[in-house]
Amino acid sequence: MKKLEVIKVGGAVVEDEMALGLFLDAIAANPADKVLVHGGGRTATDLAAKLGVETKMVDGRRITDAETLNLVTMVYGGLVNKHIVAALQAEGVNAIGLTGADMCCMLASKRPVKDIDYGFVGDMKKVDGKAIASLVEAGITPVMAPLTYDGMGGLLNTNADTIAAEVAKALAPFYDVTLNFYFEKSGVLLDPSNESSKLESIDRAQFERLVGEGVIAGGMIPKLQNAFAALDSGVAKVRISGTRII
Amino acid sequence: MKKLEVIKVGGAVVEDEMALGLFLDAIAANPADKVLVHGGGRTATDLAAKLGVETKMVDGRRITDAETLNLVTMVYGGLVNKHIVAALQAEGVNAIGLTGADMCCMLASKRPVKDIDYGFVGDMKKVDGKAIASLVEAGITPVMAPLTYDGMGGLLNTNADTIAAEVAKALAPFYDVTLNFYFEKSGVLLDPSNESSKLESIDRAQFERLVGEGVIAGGMIPKLQNAFAALDSGVAKVRISGTRII
Repeated sequence: MKKLEVIKVGGAVVEDEMALGLFLDAIAANPADKVLVHGGGRTATDLAAKLGVETKMVDGRRITDAETLNLVTMVYGGLVNKHIVAALQAEGVNAIGLTGADMCCMLASKRPVKDIDYGFVGDMKKVDGKAIASLVEAGITPVMAPLTYDGMGGLLNTNADTIAAEVAKALAPFYDVTLNFYFEKSGVLLDPSNESSKLESIDRAQFERLVGEGVIAGGMIPKLQNAFAALDSGVAKVRISGTRII
Repeated sequence: MKKLEVIKVGGAVVEDEMALGLFLDAIAANPADKVLVHGGGRTATDLAAKLGVETKMVDGRRITDAETLNLVTMVYGGLVNKHIVAALQAEGVNAIGLTGADMCCMLASKRPVKDIDYGFVGDMKKVDGKAIASLVEAGITPVMAPLTYDGMGGLLNTNADTIAAEVAKALAPFYDVTLNFYFEKSGVLLDPSNESSKLESIDRAQFERLVGEGVIAGGMIPKLQNAFAALDSGVAKVRISGTRII
């Protein structure tokens, strides 16, 4: 099977003009077929503050009311997505920006209210791998915003790591997929304050032991859970690393 | 040749939830292949006011400084475009939202500064009709935001009527194209205050005479100029009408 890279780039990189530029240069220099997925959290928070829209976070997750949904549609689907697409075009990468509503490529259901009402947050139901692959086959690089479609005319806010993992899984029947998480740290660290404590590789048993010992914590837990779930669903390889070493 | 409808819908329709709903119902009920082009002026003006960004207009045209470009990228490329795409998906129309940067489908050059510096405003250089047609052939309905690509990593603000006319021209080699301008009036009126003064048809000689007599004025002049230019470039038919009679 042909190789394909699904590349998730975090909000902190997207918002740093120089870091993003270097990252996109590296992306453009990689001749493999690829699909990009981006976050973009802080721009939305900044715009919310300017507009007087209150940002509510629970356990690091944004509560998405109707006003916040409009805001993230503007920022993720408009500003950040089109900025990346235009920058890639300038590098000779024929990019196209997509949300889940475009070609109905990422269908989700609104998260049911249990203890917390997350509002317009979507849990992924189905990624149309065939539709995304048809663009790749036409020489196009899809750039996915972290917005899914509810099947009833509305968008939903979905975590970008989850989108990257689900897109990678949906493309696994068509390609030999490597899922890449690029973020501001240099990789999975045994000590978050020490960039040289990076693990070269990790399997599920090690992961569970390190979580039990409190060594792996915070946002790295769902990132690695997404990674292992992707491997269980046919993704060939997952790489978690810093943008500097791409 | 196969028929294709290029359909421009104005900002006033896009911003009225009920008018937009009725319009999109009608679009969905039309089985022809189609490409939508939307405006969305007032939402950008409202958001600019909320953010304290000054809106500068000269002869009805928005001066687009860097801050305003970010704003219209959010509103046109994000909020309005994705709202229409999601609403069409709910109607069973497999839509995809595009700016000029996506697939590099609309290339423009920044308007040179003569008497007025319009800022980041783009004059269309080339619409990639083949790229747009390839989506249509895959059963997809492109929804174009009024944003073009400068070829160097940046977006530009371009009038939506112009985009509709240029897209129609670029598709004329592939389809029997009808270009439709839908807006809040019922058509080209001899008396703007009287909706029943609508002209059933108009040719260039009549147009020039009516402009000379001051009967056709304001925003209708560039709209009709765009229409005649499209006819000169292979578009089969232009229809200017109200959303109520679609």
